[in-house]
Amino acid sequence: MKSIAAFVVRGVPASVIASVVASVIASVVAFGAASIVPSTAHAAEGMWTLDHLPLDRMRTEIGWAPDAAWIDHAMHASARVGNGCSASFVSKDGLVLTNHHCMSGCIDQLSSPTENLLQLGFLAADRDRERRCPALEVARLDRIADVTADVKAATAGQAGNAFTAARNAVKARLASACVGRDAPRVRCDVVDLYHGGEYKVYRYHRYTDVRLAFAPEGDIAAFGGDPDNFNFPRYDLDMALVRVYEDGRPATVVDWLRFDVDGPVAGEPVFVTGHPGSTERELTVAQLAVRRDLTVLDTLLRRAELRGVLTEYRTTGPEAARTAANELHGLENGYKVARGQMTALLDPALFAKKEADEAALRRYVATEPALATRVGGAWDAIAAAERTHRALYPLYTQIERSAAFDDRYAAFARTLVRGTVERAKPNEQRLPEFNDNLLPQVEARLFSAAPVHPELERVKLTFALTQLRERLGPDAPIVRRVLGDESPSQLATRLVATTTLGDPAVRRALWRGGVDAVARSGDPFVRLMAAIDPESRAIRTRYERDVEAVLQKNTALIAEARFAAYGDTIYPDATSSLRLSYGIVTGWDEAGVPVAPFTRIGGAFDRATGAEPFALPPSWLAARGRLDASKPLDLASSADIIGGNSGSPLLNRRGDLVGLIFDGNIHSLGGAYAYDATDNRAVAVDSAAILEALDHVYDAKALVDELRGK
Amino acid sequence: MKSIAAFVVRGVPASVIASVVASVIASVVAFGAASIVPSTAHAAEGMWTLDHLPLDRMRTEIGWAPDAAWIDHAMHASARVGNGCSASFVSKDGLVLTNHHCMSGCIDQLSSPTENLLQLGFLAADRDRERRCPALEVARLDRIADVTADVKAATAGQAGNAFTAARNAVKARLASACVGRDAPRVRCDVVDLYHGGEYKVYRYHRYTDVRLAFAPEGDIAAFGGDPDNFNFPRYDLDMALVRVYEDGRPATVVDWLRFDVDGPVAGEPVFVTGHPGSTERELTVAQLAVRRDLTVLDTLLRRAELRGVLTEYRTTGPEAARTAANELHGLENGYKVARGQMTALLDPALFAKKEADEAALRRYVATEPALATRVGGAWDAIAAAERTHRALYPLYTQIERSAAFDDRYAAFARTLVRGTVERAKPNEQRLPEFNDNLLPQVEARLFSAAPVHPELERVKLTFALTQLRERLGPDAPIVRRVLGDESPSQLATRLVATTTLGDPAVRRALWRGGVDAVARSGDPFVRLMAAIDPESRAIRTRYERDVEAVLQKNTALIAEARFAAYGDTIYPDATSSLRLSYGIVTGWDEAGVPVAPFTRIGGAFDRATGAEPFALPPSWLAARGRLDASKPLDLASSADIIGGNSGSPLLNRRGDLVGLIFDGNIHSLGGAYAYDATDNRAVAVDSAAILEALDHVYDAKALVDELRGK
Repeated sequence: MKSIAAFVVRGVPASVIASVVASVIASVVAFGAASIVPSTAHAAEGMWTLDHLPLDRMRTEIGWAPDAAWIDHAMHASARVGNGCSASFVSKDGLVLTNHHCMSGCIDQLSSPTENLLQLGFLAADRDRERRCPALEVARLDRIADVTADVKAATAGQAGNAFTAARNAVKARLASACVGRDAPRVRCDVVDLYHGGEYKVYRYHRYTDVRLAFAPEGDIAAFGGDPDNFNFPRYDLDMALVRVYEDGRPATVVDWLRFDVDGPVAGEPVFVTGHPGSTERELTVAQLAVRRDLTVLDTLLRRAELRGVLTEYRTTGPEAARTAANELHGLENGYKVARGQMTALLDPALFAKKEADEAALRRYVATEPALATRVGGAWDAIAAAERTHRALYPLYTQIERSAAFDDRYAAFARTLVRGTVERAKPNEQRLPEFNDNLLPQVEARLFSAAPVHPELERVKLTFALTQLRERLGPDAPIVRRVLGDESPSQLATRLVATTTLGDPAVRRALWRGGVDAVARSGDPFVRLMAAIDPESRAIRTRYERDVEAVLQKNTALIAEARFAAYGDTIYPDATSSLRLSYGIVTGWDEAGVPVAPFTRIGGAFDRATGAEPFALPPSWLAARGRLDASKPLDLASSADIIGGNSGSPLLNRRGDLVGLIFDGNIHSLGGAYAYDATDNRAVAVDSAAILEALDHVYDAKALVDELRGK
Repeated sequence: MKSIAAFVVRGVPASVIASVVASVIASVVAFGAASIVPSTAHAAEGMWTLDHLPLDRMRTEIGWAPDAAWIDHAMHASARVGNGCSASFVSKDGLVLTNHHCMSGCIDQLSSPTENLLQLGFLAADRDRERRCPALEVARLDRIADVTADVKAATAGQAGNAFTAARNAVKARLASACVGRDAPRVRCDVVDLYHGGEYKVYRYHRYTDVRLAFAPEGDIAAFGGDPDNFNFPRYDLDMALVRVYEDGRPATVVDWLRFDVDGPVAGEPVFVTGHPGSTERELTVAQLAVRRDLTVLDTLLRRAELRGVLTEYRTTGPEAARTAANELHGLENGYKVARGQMTALLDPALFAKKEADEAALRRYVATEPALATRVGGAWDAIAAAERTHRALYPLYTQIERSAAFDDRYAAFARTLVRGTVERAKPNEQRLPEFNDNLLPQVEARLFSAAPVHPELERVKLTFALTQLRERLGPDAPIVRRVLGDESPSQLATRLVATTTLGDPAVRRALWRGGVDAVARSGDPFVRLMAAIDPESRAIRTRYERDVEAVLQKNTALIAEARFAAYGDTIYPDATSSLRLSYGIVTGWDEAGVPVAPFTRIGGAFDRATGAEPFALPPSWLAARGRLDASKPLDLASSADIIGGNSGSPLLNRRGDLVGLIFDGNIHSLGGAYAYDATDNRAVAVDSAAILEALDHVYDAKALVDELRGK
């Protein structure tokens, strides 16, 4: 923690400031007096599982902690969106609030050359005119069960590919047992926590009929566009409302969040429930070095170049602009994420702290003979596996992880080639992505009616194949086998021109036809993916044996050491499972200049230039006189979030919704590796702004009434 | 040095192997026994100035060293090409050999929509039909004089902007005095060696009438394209022949290189004379960290994204393809260079060695009281200046270094706005890029008849302005002043559509009209560059005061320490001044697999797929039966080179030309920071291949006779 100054904000009740300051002092004292390692958690740090919340710490740090009823309600009113976002139920009739950027895939898929809903926005005139998203599910976590003993028993004494096979098998068995006869309405995931330290089964209720009710225009949902992304002050209405249906009718839900009409105040404690995708805070120093030197840098460079390709491609015509917009939006977001991660990884202070923490834990292990025997070798084993990782990375990433075939047709073909083979095996022997509990999603993606845009796919595939040749070299056997005598552009053009996989009926027929139908298919993408499949599987087997299994066994040992050293005071890295974060509404100091925690609706008008991405939509310009310029629009808080938290509700102590998380500030990107309370901030749309806009810009009376519980 | 195995090559005379091994042992012994720091130079390491060659070391390491006559001849037969390449005189009639990629600007400028010479190649039917390059000069170094005392006296006791002003003034005075009345045929540069440790005046003879005699087709000049760039084995005829004229007639030169018809053999000592542009081997650890964390990474990301933009742009039509090709070629080269530099900077071994070397030198300084007083604080002063550098970098790079205006029109406008003001000042008070000795080049670029392609410039400027907004943020005052209410695309489109600076006559009139004409000009680029000029100059002044002057003063102190510690056994970092490197013809071990030092002409046919960039031109396919497939095509040697050495002659002990440097292998890119004899290799076209191709592919009898001295 660099300073507590950022927490001392105008308008914060004195009691809150006092408790925050007390917590800082308390934690400094605690760390100074008794801790084994220099530091474990800062104030407001952590993405905690809902069955393991740091209630005492919360009381100390933000002056309040929830009770069991609050937690249960928050958990069941929270939701996960199939594409990696979060959401919440906001009415008894299955209305779900999430971000516009979480629904942009659906909005894009519902668009046509003559009706670009990403640009125009959408408001269903009534429930009958809500429009179904082609391939999207919303899931609600209903139950958590501990299966650590089962998984550890099944994998005990195993190593290499046998370890991976045993782990996959027991996870498949546990997931199937959890679903029981309740498929397809139930989905169960075996969740890995603390990198193998614990395993839990998360049982979800699935909603597969999801319909778009409202989305604002892209120009206000993402006002400021890429330049403002991950920045603050911010002026975005990054929201969308969908409704989940069951049996053709709006689903009835028991737990849903009431809308707070005023939003929160500065200094107020707030809570975020959501599905943060991935953090890597528990990684060893050797693992972090591979991120810095290889994987994050490689990702960053790839995204930079593809960004250039798509930025230029979209200028070639209106249809190119329309079809590339959503892809480019996601890509620019991903580029900035990797850029922020690289900045963090290049910060000598971060590595110094990680090294100190690791050294302290290793010293602790060395003092406990039994632990030392079991665990002492884990760090060196990981370092050795990471050396192998460096060597295997290009081939593994390009071929088995499909970087070389970053294209929807190729993805369909991979699913058909592999899925038909895997599906025919007993569940426990399959590649885990084809386990029974995941097959409904596999099929939803494969059969999706969402349009495929051949020109866009051709451009992306040309780039991906060029990268394949660049990363592995033109003389690598697999590159020669893929390209033959064609250039990347020639091959991509031929494949896209002659494939029939753009037709969902073709994909459905091949999937239903199984292995034989796929073997008989002359589709060029199917033939290509079939041709490389043996080599791709071989690379995967080698990677799983020499890297993944070694990492999994040894990170689990380090988790043991951490439990021994810190007890249950630690939280697990994010793994897309439901978590709760907490903090207070607050700005921060940016290079000595205070950043206020709120922006106001009037600020959007002040900032608009009329040129994209700083152009407000006509609806807002027309509504200016009806809007309260002084109302809050967006807000910052110290809750610890990461990608995947998009769409999360921001809750107050009553458990009401006071905001909608849609972003973090630029400093939050380093949160992948460490949380810094000084300047890591979550960014949300204020609940007051949502109601103001629905009411006075969009005249969405029915939705406003529904959100107000009328 | 990792291993000496790479030097033990089949076909190497035993005596050479013995001497190489002896040298390795000798240097290991020397380092072990007597050195102050762990190591200074490896076998074949160094880009040595021609007035300071390591003759004893050469005798030890490669078994031979040149005499004064050899050195004098090599120096005067070597040449510099104005755009940052090297070259050599190869006939008494002013014929100059360099790389195709060094002449691609000229070849591009001589092309038209209906005659793409980059693709078609060019052979002048006779001397009268040699075609003049619009803006290119060739220069030959005639004399070197030491002016260290003058520069040090003029700057003694100065700091900050006064230091910079004094240094600029004395350099301007010394350069002017050297040129005397011999302008425009003479140019003099004050060359900074050892980062301020020494200053020399290099006096050049300028040839400004340069005409293209021969260039092969791009498909064989750069066979393998970007995938093969910086790789080996290689199959390129990356050559061009130009002729320098004086008074409308071919210039007569005294020193020119005889062509060796057979080329060199494996293990043979070879020498490279040329103009390596920049190395940073003398940088402190603090400086290298800024390269890694900021400047190289920033450059790399920018180039990656622009590469994507131009790659996609060139697919939009044949004219886009033609006009973007040369730009993209240079960009891809620069991208790979930065990628290689980043790889080196992320290598923990490199930083460990740099830290150890620096610590050893600092320990040495600490033992010498007088030196310690003068020099001891230099490293910390540099580290402090580099912290300021980090803070100033975005603004300085975008505005004063024109990253935000990476566009030919903007460059013209900057020259007009600044140059007319500077030109009116006394020479010694000008910004140094407008000193009298450089004005002929400034004017050559400004008045060049080379075509400007508005669409390409619009695309580049859109990208550059988008980067400006991204790096400085949309709310930075300078960004608001540049963009106003327009988007980067809108502004770039408007500026390019309304400028008249594409016409050389307009530029000439403004330049001749001076400050008043520029002030009256309504050209939008002139107005934009005039509007930002005061702020841009202010940034420069601050950067020069707080960063550059501090670095220059303190790197000169470190040079003093290095001279004290190592005497004259060290070579200076590359600074585009003429250097000699030496080595032997040899391959290396790539991941345990030996790479042979030669490729053969037949290998190009074996590797051709027919698809770009692995397509041979029709002329080669037609000539296949006439070519000797067993003749060498390209070769690798251990000479220590870097960008700027392109076009350098590869000489043998007789001083004859045995090859034409055109590239390094991938490991050579780390040579920016350290030379590693194990795998750093220079790549050249074999002299035998040049004659074989001119004779049997291009039927260029007159040129063959001229090169053979007939």
